Amino acid sequence: MSSGQNEKINQQLFLKQVPTGIAGPEDFETKESPAPECGNGQVLVESHYFGLDAALRLIVRDSDEFLFRVRPGDLVRGTAAGRVIESKLSGYEVGEYVLASGGVQNFIACGPGELERCDVSQAPLEAWLGGFGVSGLTAYFALIKECKPQPGQTVLVNGAAGAVGSIAGQIAKLAGATVIGLTGSEEKCDWLVNELGYDIAINYKDSDWYDQLVTAAPDRLDFIFDNVGGEVLDLSLKLIAMRGTVLLCGSTSQYAQEEMRGPDNYIWLGTMRARMQGYVIFDYVDQYEEARTQMAGWIKDGKLKIPSFAVSGDVCDFPEAFKQLYEGKNLGKMVLKLPAAI
Amino acid sequence: MSSGQNEKINQQLFLKQVPTGIAGPEDFETKESPAPECGNGQVLVESHYFGLDAALRLIVRDSDEFLFRVRPGDLVRGTAAGRVIESKLSGYEVGEYVLASGGVQNFIACGPGELERCDVSQAPLEAWLGGFGVSGLTAYFALIKECKPQPGQTVLVNGAAGAVGSIAGQIAKLAGATVIGLTGSEEKCDWLVNELGYDIAINYKDSDWYDQLVTAAPDRLDFIFDNVGGEVLDLSLKLIAMRGTVLLCGSTSQYAQEEMRGPDNYIWLGTMRARMQGYVIFDYVDQYEEARTQMAGWIKDGKLKIPSFAVSGDVCDFPEAFKQLYEGKNLGKMVLKLPAAI
Repeated sequence: MSSGQNEKINQQLFLKQVPTGIAGPEDFETKESPAPECGNGQVLVESHYFGLDAALRLIVRDSDEFLFRVRPGDLVRGTAAGRVIESKLSGYEVGEYVLASGGVQNFIACGPGELERCDVSQAPLEAWLGGFGVSGLTAYFALIKECKPQPGQTVLVNGAAGAVGSIAGQIAKLAGATVIGLTGSEEKCDWLVNELGYDIAINYKDSDWYDQLVTAAPDRLDFIFDNVGGEVLDLSLKLIAMRGTVLLCGSTSQYAQEEMRGPDNYIWLGTMRARMQGYVIFDYVDQYEEARTQMAGWIKDGKLKIPSFAVSGDVCDFPEAFKQLYEGKNLGKMVLKLPAAI
Repeated sequence: MSSGQNEKINQQLFLKQVPTGIAGPEDFETKESPAPECGNGQVLVESHYFGLDAALRLIVRDSDEFLFRVRPGDLVRGTAAGRVIESKLSGYEVGEYVLASGGVQNFIACGPGELERCDVSQAPLEAWLGGFGVSGLTAYFALIKECKPQPGQTVLVNGAAGAVGSIAGQIAKLAGATVIGLTGSEEKCDWLVNELGYDIAINYKDSDWYDQLVTAAPDRLDFIFDNVGGEVLDLSLKLIAMRGTVLLCGSTSQYAQEEMRGPDNYIWLGTMRARMQGYVIFDYVDQYEEARTQMAGWIKDGKLKIPSFAVSGDVCDFPEAFKQLYEGKNLGKMVLKLPAAI
């Protein structure tokens, strides 16, 4: 940070090919170039953290069907949490912490439309990419505005130890519900119960996980908060309560599948007068600030933890971190911590 | 009808075995016995018509998962439309027309809990088993209470020429919506458009049916009224409109499948903030009378047709009629017309 920006090397991550299976390093390539110029009306942001989002696997598919698309040759979409190192934009000062939507790279020159200020007194910078960012807000609005669980009701969180699920379970507990989490290891089960306050956590890799779930939910499931899809959604649907709701926040198990599969037990929606409902966080963008104020209060009061799981590396290490995300290595949000953050 | 009831022969239909594939005559057996005695507090009803319901295939499966179950050796569930021929129940007179829930047989001795009066001035007796009965009421409440389509909105009816779909499309038209029907033959397409007033009908056996649907629904589908499931539901889901609703009224394509399949394109619910919602007609039982009054008015005004498709035969012919239902022979409700009705 000592010398002029032209000496700064900018690693940029491009998609090389449409992946098959879990995306890995072979599907991406890193190119180096000088950091971009900061234009008038722009700031230059140095990236400190990137979040790893399972949904990236969906938008690199050979399909125009989803909200966004990244094609081979494109800069990989991503939002950095970083610091303003040069400003030609009134209202932004050098040294401020921001989220900058400009793709996966070390330096981002961007205008106000791509920027969001991070108040690091509310939550640490990296949390703004995870539990205090879109992942956490997804859980917040899903629970507070869409599901509205009541004391006495039971909420199942699929993908419970992930970026969204780890917040969803805590907020459902704050609402007074009984919360069951499904996750992929004993370690994660212990963490959900002991650190995050889940009532019950079940390892879906246990051969009898469904029986465990039946036992854990004698009054069935009023809400299934699902960001996983696949067998976990399919079997949990058999336990949906009368007039229950499945809130669809993602389908991570399906993003890397050649042919996506739906839940064969959808017929239970009929029997139980239940609904399966889509939900997209961007519809709540005008309420993000209010939600963050509420969440910051919970954090201060010790009622909400914002777990993130940082791996250190540079932009070129992003693909490996993404692979680890799909391997389920993370407790909470998986983030890549760049050299600038250290 | 001239002599004592003891001389009357009662054919009764039993399930012989759990069917594989479409249920056929080999899966049922008919037994004959004298007509039952009419006990105190009962009426004796002679059956004139039985409705053929696709859902029967679901409840004869080797599974306790559904609303009802008929096991091998059980009398087959069914509701007769018939006439009271003997009464030991105050308030019911000989000669009255009723629906009697007492299984598939010629004579039913039953009490008030199994009886419903049919006002044949509102609709003909056989219509009480179809478009003026549970099938038509299913369509009515689905459209009027659950979907509430508005002028300018588009409603897709899957299984459009069936007992439920043939009423659903007409009611959606009465609500002012644009109505598209999917059905299984050119003849049915013509009938939907020319007789029932559908705006567009598409034959799902055409190889390009999905492209035809894309063209027919330039503003996508606000409501998908589905009682079919399978590929028809799966592909139509790709056209659900923003905040659209899939109303699940059945899954006839799946009832005879060894392994039921769900809609793989359920992920579109997420993208489109849409919902797929279960619905069971029995929840509206206290509003049937009000609905029938409304529907009878529409019938009188020539705004609603109650199509039924009668095959003549006795109780022993029920399995063959059921097979024909699954082969899609019917325009509107498939009913078996018994000798007593002639």
